[in-house]
Amino acid sequence: MSDYAEPIERLIDEFRRFPGIGIKSAQRMAYIVLRRGHEENERLCRAISDVKEKIRACSRCNNFSDSDPCRYCGPSRSPETICVVEEPNDILAVEKTREYHGRYHVLHGALSPINGVGPSDLMIGNLLERLREGEVKEIILATNPNVEGEATAIYLSKLLKPIGVKVSRIALGLPVGGDLEYADEMTMTKALEYRHEM
Amino acid sequence: MSDYAEPIERLIDEFRRFPGIGIKSAQRMAYIVLRRGHEENERLCRAISDVKEKIRACSRCNNFSDSDPCRYCGPSRSPETICVVEEPNDILAVEKTREYHGRYHVLHGALSPINGVGPSDLMIGNLLERLREGEVKEIILATNPNVEGEATAIYLSKLLKPIGVKVSRIALGLPVGGDLEYADEMTMTKALEYRHEM
Repeated sequence: MSDYAEPIERLIDEFRRFPGIGIKSAQRMAYIVLRRGHEENERLCRAISDVKEKIRACSRCNNFSDSDPCRYCGPSRSPETICVVEEPNDILAVEKTREYHGRYHVLHGALSPINGVGPSDLMIGNLLERLREGEVKEIILATNPNVEGEATAIYLSKLLKPIGVKVSRIALGLPVGGDLEYADEMTMTKALEYRHEM
Repeated sequence: MSDYAEPIERLIDEFRRFPGIGIKSAQRMAYIVLRRGHEENERLCRAISDVKEKIRACSRCNNFSDSDPCRYCGPSRSPETICVVEEPNDILAVEKTREYHGRYHVLHGALSPINGVGPSDLMIGNLLERLREGEVKEIILATNPNVEGEATAIYLSKLLKPIGVKVSRIALGLPVGGDLEYADEMTMTKALEYRHEM
């Protein structure tokens, strides 16, 4: 006999599917769902279905957005620079510096042979298409300063430099082994300032 | 202009309503919802609605259950002892010891004047009703070993002893300031063994 009634067990399992949510957090969340009103639970489910319905990947940069092209692909941003990041959230870390006025490209991942993630799993194809348009002068590689991010930066640099575009890497002012998402504004500003050509 | 498109912002807000889920966790969860298939999101929402539909508080002990009376209020458990806990999850901490064969009573909270939680906010009324049936010989107060739990135990002991029932408190083998939910089996076993009459 399980410790929980089946519907509670099933809800705990569903919450545990989110990375970072352990058994204790999932149990607490399930009990909150049980305690609070139907209205609040329906609002959560409506938010889940709305986000899937209204949010799409931008056809240019792959950022999640409710418009296509997204806000960062519009005419207010310089088309001469593309900052390549792993995840949509990483865009916010760069935006926080208020120092960058170019465009973005979201890879939706990083190379990781151990986890079976190869170049074909990343959104590299439409990055090459954007370069063919000829407006781009510099690519800033802002992948994470960890093993996967570095490998991805080296791979992209070897791929892109023969095309004749300037390729730079954000400075490793970010603590090595860390995550772009947690960078503070100053560290991120330094990292942009000291980018070096590859 | 917000950092996120409105539907993403709204979903992040909904996840943040769960205590213990911070901004970073909520963002990650929202992106997972965006990335994974409709089917997985629907399964989560179905689990949420099922749990609200199928799980009720047991009319005797207030434990969340898919049956009424719940599994711990059945004839397999001794009606002579009632173990009073703050939350349904705390029952599992006591069950893990395999040393307790009596019944339970869930208060759904603890006294906390600072948070405006008084005796009338706890499920004390139907505990008194159960005592009136005359089968109960001992009440074990297994509220948490922190300020609120101690205050609740003292309040209940003063309320219950005049009725003529034996009232005991689990031993403070549990680390003071801790939480019943995190107790290991041995500590919990000691706490049951060394309960003292109040």
